[in-house]
Amino acid sequence: MKQPKKIVVVGGGTGTFVVLSGLKQHPHDLTAIVTVADSGGSTGRLRDEFGFIPVGDLRQSLAALAHENDQSWIKDLLLYRFSQGKGLKGHNLGNLILTALQDMADSTPKALEIASKIFRLKGHIYPVTTQNVQLIVDFEDGTSITGEHHLNPGKTGGKKIKAIKLFPSAKLYSKAKDAIESADLIIFGPGDLYASILPNLVVSGAKRAYKTAKAKIVYIVNLMTRYTQTHGFTAKDHVEEVKNYLGRYPDYVVVNSNSIPKSVQVSYQKDNEFPVINDLNSKHYQVIRDSLASIAKTKQQKGDIVQRSLLRHNENKLTKILLKILYQK
Amino acid sequence: MKQPKKIVVVGGGTGTFVVLSGLKQHPHDLTAIVTVADSGGSTGRLRDEFGFIPVGDLRQSLAALAHENDQSWIKDLLLYRFSQGKGLKGHNLGNLILTALQDMADSTPKALEIASKIFRLKGHIYPVTTQNVQLIVDFEDGTSITGEHHLNPGKTGGKKIKAIKLFPSAKLYSKAKDAIESADLIIFGPGDLYASILPNLVVSGAKRAYKTAKAKIVYIVNLMTRYTQTHGFTAKDHVEEVKNYLGRYPDYVVVNSNSIPKSVQVSYQKDNEFPVINDLNSKHYQVIRDSLASIAKTKQQKGDIVQRSLLRHNENKLTKILLKILYQK
Repeated sequence: MKQPKKIVVVGGGTGTFVVLSGLKQHPHDLTAIVTVADSGGSTGRLRDEFGFIPVGDLRQSLAALAHENDQSWIKDLLLYRFSQGKGLKGHNLGNLILTALQDMADSTPKALEIASKIFRLKGHIYPVTTQNVQLIVDFEDGTSITGEHHLNPGKTGGKKIKAIKLFPSAKLYSKAKDAIESADLIIFGPGDLYASILPNLVVSGAKRAYKTAKAKIVYIVNLMTRYTQTHGFTAKDHVEEVKNYLGRYPDYVVVNSNSIPKSVQVSYQKDNEFPVINDLNSKHYQVIRDSLASIAKTKQQKGDIVQRSLLRHNENKLTKILLKILYQK
Repeated sequence: MKQPKKIVVVGGGTGTFVVLSGLKQHPHDLTAIVTVADSGGSTGRLRDEFGFIPVGDLRQSLAALAHENDQSWIKDLLLYRFSQGKGLKGHNLGNLILTALQDMADSTPKALEIASKIFRLKGHIYPVTTQNVQLIVDFEDGTSITGEHHLNPGKTGGKKIKAIKLFPSAKLYSKAKDAIESADLIIFGPGDLYASILPNLVVSGAKRAYKTAKAKIVYIVNLMTRYTQTHGFTAKDHVEEVKNYLGRYPDYVVVNSNSIPKSVQVSYQKDNEFPVINDLNSKHYQVIRDSLASIAKTKQQKGDIVQRSLLRHNENKLTKILLKILYQK
């Protein structure tokens, strides 16, 4: 029997959720490598109180890869947020489940392994590191923050980021390393560049693993700029920054080509966020353009205290592009 | 193909947990009918804050019937209690999951149906009623309490209970009724007599359903008296009270015959709780005696703010007795 192709999706957050949700419909060996430096909202509260590795980005991947029957109850359960209840309001049930499992199992990878059995995951989820780390962001203006939740509009909006690192410095988790080295396809993004994507590249051992990897590497450019991270970034700015951290260009860059509806643009403009302009033109990588912007079908959850974006990459189109790359000779 | 035998277990709490855990190992059509008048601890907090039907007793049955592989992670997850975390401490994860599902599904039976799919239950769980009710307890001394959590040693310990009822009055849930009427075996207890067992009999329609039932009816007597409910009760006192509420004697009464280790007795004595004396001798029902008392293997969960008893009925022996009754001509 032929071995299934191995796909690794690197990131965290809703972008990775979309990529995984699409790919899990197909019979590949799917692995999510997820950043663990989030520190805001429900995740941040749990992190402060329990001292475990933060669960927010892991939970998104868990929900994406969970077994689905007609109703996708598991996904809904894992993404459920309490809209009331003393001490519960704003907490995400998936976060609470992962926190409990970490406490029961005394290790994040073990907790994810148990979650994988309970929720019958169609794939693997590995934290990029098993060490408990904070994101440090240095800005061009000489200032610096420690903790991803300090990336907020009032405080750091519009400021240009010079570099990110983790504190304390951390090592790539061994199973994540194995997955990278044996992958046929590795996908970065879409997702918050400095909070979800690049933190996966600043653990020690990551650059070497991606260098050793025989996989085709794809980067999916975001639809919109992010005021606290990529204000004013063009598509090329995104790719160049990925290259800086990855140590090489991706083989493929996927970028949106359709225009975003005016009404949606207006709601993003209030937050100083704008469509990413496609100025890609390079001999270093192949550019794939498609009309990928779509309006999220998922309803805003009650009690969701962190703002969620409305726009998503079209899951089906994105999956089609990724599989085409995978099987391209 | 032969239809599997239908077994209904009526109660709530840890006694019902033991009975269900044992019976689920065998290929029967298993249904738990569970009281929904608990109002203390984690359950009480969630009940106050969300206004849903209380989930504590339902969660015990959920954990008992959940799919198990070698490690029983699902059970452990559902019974996990938070030992820290602002607003989380003392909360039970199974309670939080059932609360979220009630919110998502807008109905308790529907929430249980979803939980049943997610956690691959080996059986059905029905609340005895879908109405939101409180337990009213009238004492012989003329006093009365509303709310099961008021049954506490300092307040009502040692007082003789005259009668219980529900407020507002409630109706037997239709699927519970169907299960009772089509059962081959119906099992009451073990469990808190006035808080877990008899509340199932004071919903309108219950007496009639048990009268119509063609099933053999078994009552399993508790190992120990309960200071807040059955202080000074002999085995016969238990059975007579069940008969008062059921409108008939059970066909079989299962009672413990071995002596409880002194060290365990001492720890219970501190709470004014004592071994139930077996004085059963009646032509109305068949008495089955066996050495059933065993020390609970389950470890005390961290953060468990409600006191849990150490003694349990021996699961294997109890299961053997129940199956013998079921297949007895």
